[in-house]
Amino acid sequence: MITVVKIGGRILDDQPALEMFCRDFASLAGPKLLVHGGNVLASRVQEALGVPPIRVEGRRVTDAAALQVVTMVYAGWYNKSVVAQLQREGCDAVGLSGCDGAVITASRRPPLTLSDGSTLDFGFVGDVTPASVRIPFVLSLLEQGFVPVLSAINHDGRGQLLNTNADTVAASLAAALGARLVYCFEKPGVLADPGRDDSVLQSIDTSDFEKLKASGTVSDGMLPKLETAFSALRSGAREVFIMNAAGLLAGGGTRICL
Amino acid sequence: MITVVKIGGRILDDQPALEMFCRDFASLAGPKLLVHGGNVLASRVQEALGVPPIRVEGRRVTDAAALQVVTMVYAGWYNKSVVAQLQREGCDAVGLSGCDGAVITASRRPPLTLSDGSTLDFGFVGDVTPASVRIPFVLSLLEQGFVPVLSAINHDGRGQLLNTNADTVAASLAAALGARLVYCFEKPGVLADPGRDDSVLQSIDTSDFEKLKASGTVSDGMLPKLETAFSALRSGAREVFIMNAAGLLAGGGTRICL
Repeated sequence: MITVVKIGGRILDDQPALEMFCRDFASLAGPKLLVHGGNVLASRVQEALGVPPIRVEGRRVTDAAALQVVTMVYAGWYNKSVVAQLQREGCDAVGLSGCDGAVITASRRPPLTLSDGSTLDFGFVGDVTPASVRIPFVLSLLEQGFVPVLSAINHDGRGQLLNTNADTVAASLAAALGARLVYCFEKPGVLADPGRDDSVLQSIDTSDFEKLKASGTVSDGMLPKLETAFSALRSGAREVFIMNAAGLLAGGGTRICL
Repeated sequence: MITVVKIGGRILDDQPALEMFCRDFASLAGPKLLVHGGNVLASRVQEALGVPPIRVEGRRVTDAAALQVVTMVYAGWYNKSVVAQLQREGCDAVGLSGCDGAVITASRRPPLTLSDGSTLDFGFVGDVTPASVRIPFVLSLLEQGFVPVLSAINHDGRGQLLNTNADTVAASLAAALGARLVYCFEKPGVLADPGRDDSVLQSIDTSDFEKLKASGTVSDGMLPKLETAFSALRSGAREVFIMNAAGLLAGGGTRICL
C-alpha cells in the first residue's frame, strides 16, 4: 500500500527532530510520499520583510507579497532542505510543487460573502480535491522508486501559483491513490484529556467525533484536521492515522475510521 | 538534438519579458531543458532581511543566511514561477534543484589560498561538472515528454545544499547530454563593438577569443561566460550559442566554436 505522510511547520523548524524524522521516513517500507507545510518560517520571513501576514475576520489572506514569501519558504527552503536530507538517508526524494509536471492543479478559492453582506477575497489561495491530482505522473514516479516530496504550493494551470492547505493536499493525494494517510503533529495522537499525553485515543469514528466535539475535547486546529481525515476516508483513502512523528515506525497514535 | 537554454536574473525580474520568453521556449522544437539563475531578487531579499550579500576580495561568499535566501529565491520563487508559466503555455515543465532525484550532485568548493597566505572560505558554494549529472534520470524525464527546469541550487549528496553557478550548471548538462547549449542574456550576442548592438559577431573560435581578450573587447562577465562555453564544447556539448532571449526562435546571436 502507498503511504502519504504529512508533517507540519514545527518539525521543519526543529533541525534535530527533522533529522530524526527523515531517518525514520527513509526507513518506512513501500511506496511513499511526503507532504509538508511551513507556516512558522513563512510568518517570520513576512515580518522581517515588512509584509506581515494579513488576517481578515481570523482568516489568513494571501496577497501577492505573501504568495511570494510562502512560495520561497515552502517550495524553496523547506522543500529542498527536506529532499537533501532524505537523499542523504538513501531515500530517492524528488521535491515537487503542484506546477511541477502539473502534479496538482488547484482552483482559486472564490470570495466569501460575510454575514454583513460584504465579501472577503482570500487572494492567491487555492482549494484541492482528489480530482486535482495527476495520478499517472505520481504512480510513474513511485514505480521508478522515487519518493515525491510535495510542498503545499500549487498552481491553477493558467500560470498562477496558489497557496493551499497542506493537510488537504495530503488528504487529496491519499484519496486519489487509495493510500494510507499519516498526519504527524506535535502530540502523540488525539487525546481524551488534552492536558495528558498518555490519554491517546486508539481510534475515533464519526460518532466518537460528534461526542468529542460536543464535549469540547476536540477543538481549534484539531477540528479541521479531523474533518479532513474523515473526508479523505470518504473519498478513497484506505487508512488514516494521526500521531507524533516519533511513532512513524513504532506505530501508535489514533486511527480514524468512518 | 536536446537543447539546454540558460536565462539570467534580468529576464526573470521582468514579467513581460519572462512571459514572452516562456511562450518562445514552449514553442521550441525537440527535447529541452531550462536552467535559470536569479541574482537580482536574491540580493534584494538579502538586503531586506538585513543579511546583505558578503563579498571577500570581490568574490561572493555564501554563508548559512545567504544559502537560505538563494534557496528560497532560486529553488522557490523563480523556479515555480517559471514552471507555472510554462505549464500555462502547454509545456510540461518539472522544476528541479540538484537534490531532486539527485539530478545534480555538486562538490563543495575548497577554500582558496590568497596571495597573502590567508585562506578564503566561499561557504556553501559548490562546483559542478558533467560528471555531476544523473544522466539516466534526465533522459527518462525527456523521454516521457517532460521539460526539466533547473535552479542553480544543488546538493552534495550528504544533506548539504550548495549554491552553484547557473552558467556552469547549463554547460555541465549540455556536455553530459551532448546537447545544444544556448545562453540567453540582455545583449543580442557577443559584440565586436560593445557600444553597438548591431555589431554581433556571427561566430567566435578559440583564436578569435584570444584576440578579443587581448583587445579588451570582451571583458567582465562575458569572459567567464565564454570560458564556460568553450569548456562545454570541449567536454561534449554539440553546439553553443550566446544570444538575446528574443532570438530563441528567430535565430541569430553568436556561435561559439572550438
